[in-house]
Amino acid sequence: MTRIERSLSQSLELAKTADSPPLLTAAMRYAVIPGGARIRPRLCLAVARACRDDQPGLAGAAAASIELLHCASLVHDDLPCFDDAATRRGRASVHKAFGERIAVLTGDALIVLAFQTLARAAERAPARLVPLIGIVARAVGAPDGIAAGQAWECEPAITLGKYQRAKTGALFAAATAAGACAAGHQAGTWHLLGERIGEAFQIADDIRDVVSSEFDLGKPVGRDQALGRPNAVHRLGIGSAVQRLENLVQSAIEAIPACPGANDLRVHILAEASRLLPRELARPAA
Amino acid sequence: MTRIERSLSQSLELAKTADSPPLLTAAMRYAVIPGGARIRPRLCLAVARACRDDQPGLAGAAAASIELLHCASLVHDDLPCFDDAATRRGRASVHKAFGERIAVLTGDALIVLAFQTLARAAERAPARLVPLIGIVARAVGAPDGIAAGQAWECEPAITLGKYQRAKTGALFAAATAAGACAAGHQAGTWHLLGERIGEAFQIADDIRDVVSSEFDLGKPVGRDQALGRPNAVHRLGIGSAVQRLENLVQSAIEAIPACPGANDLRVHILAEASRLLPRELARPAA
Repeated sequence: MTRIERSLSQSLELAKTADSPPLLTAAMRYAVIPGGARIRPRLCLAVARACRDDQPGLAGAAAASIELLHCASLVHDDLPCFDDAATRRGRASVHKAFGERIAVLTGDALIVLAFQTLARAAERAPARLVPLIGIVARAVGAPDGIAAGQAWECEPAITLGKYQRAKTGALFAAATAAGACAAGHQAGTWHLLGERIGEAFQIADDIRDVVSSEFDLGKPVGRDQALGRPNAVHRLGIGSAVQRLENLVQSAIEAIPACPGANDLRVHILAEASRLLPRELARPAA
Repeated sequence: MTRIERSLSQSLELAKTADSPPLLTAAMRYAVIPGGARIRPRLCLAVARACRDDQPGLAGAAAASIELLHCASLVHDDLPCFDDAATRRGRASVHKAFGERIAVLTGDALIVLAFQTLARAAERAPARLVPLIGIVARAVGAPDGIAAGQAWECEPAITLGKYQRAKTGALFAAATAAGACAAGHQAGTWHLLGERIGEAFQIADDIRDVVSSEFDLGKPVGRDQALGRPNAVHRLGIGSAVQRLENLVQSAIEAIPACPGANDLRVHILAEASRLLPRELARPAA
């Protein structure tokens, strides 16, 4: 069992007692385990390791909190009033499996659990909790976190950059900043790395939505076109979109701040980037 | 402007920039201001004052965070998939005024803002943030906070006591515990006071649902019967319900832990209790 899965399981145990409502606790677990690629918490831990990871419990909690918030956003994003998605990660979405009411509550309870997880782990380093909560909260709330990103979908006109930075980029930026902060480093210089990786991930997501099969992706494809959402492949063409992704990965590498484990972190990011594209489009990492 | 309204306005400012999505930030404000009786944050501040209130900014933030979470729960509770309430506090509910998607996001963003508000105010007393987040998170999440309370409504059988403790009692218990914790006192002994006030409030709410008019209450009456929800008046009759409420207020008074301002706190609680009942049922407080 990896460090991330262990941290997530420990968090979910906080939400479950003999007395807790069974459907809610089952749905919370269903929303989180088994997961996707865990790309955000893996990035968070890679940064913590690059910063010497002197409080591994806190870094694990930071990684878990970011994944819990990501999962919460997927549950609410799949709701009938938003994307009305019937499947997620190759099986029924939470509202299809547990009903709409439990899906709303699952998202709410996962958001709460993310903050609770951070606080529980910060007992040995309480001074780091103030900036950690700030980093994580900013990534998911208003004015420029995930909730803001989804809210831009409700406005008559979307500013594409703001929308994507809020909906996707913010949590990647939080992953790098929280990894550094959990390890006692200044978080400020770490946001840019996450933002660039987030932008690369967004373009990769756009590419997969166009060229993957539903079987490979575990969720419906062609959704951007069906829902009238912006997609870099529609805008740039497939070749330029792949080129843009490669440029972003390179600029992310260049944005790694000075730290003891910068080399290992570079290797981690290149390895992750090589998995972003569908096999038929992937080129070996530089 | 009272201390609570000022704290809430400061919190909402955190959620708003020139770049934030206008509907979301408007809906967040609409959900919080103007409010109801602010009974939970008033209780939180009364406890902080009874404990000498040596960090007034933190106590104000604790009170605001509890009210933000209360407002978030109302927004989600009013959604079509739950109570489908068209009105709240005498005007359109958030989903009626802003649409269902913005209402889901408003609840999410208010939950996040509650934790962000606590962290921002804890910079001068970071050691208090760990227990404060724990107190507040427990009151609203799974396994026994507000989300759990709402989730019991989705189970085939409800245990009435668990349901009411989670859905109503937990946030009152958090209000007293957080007030003490923000002022540097041990929170553990303060939960019982909040639990008893919460139970009294629940019975008063049941009574109002039966005997008030929609005009006085600002929301539909007779909802418990219409939705098949448990109500103390249906179970005990009106006379016994009022008697039970009075006994609970008395036992709450007896549960006040030793603290410098115990007398003033007793006066505060009796004054609040005298407002719990509709005028025609109220008797002068003992």
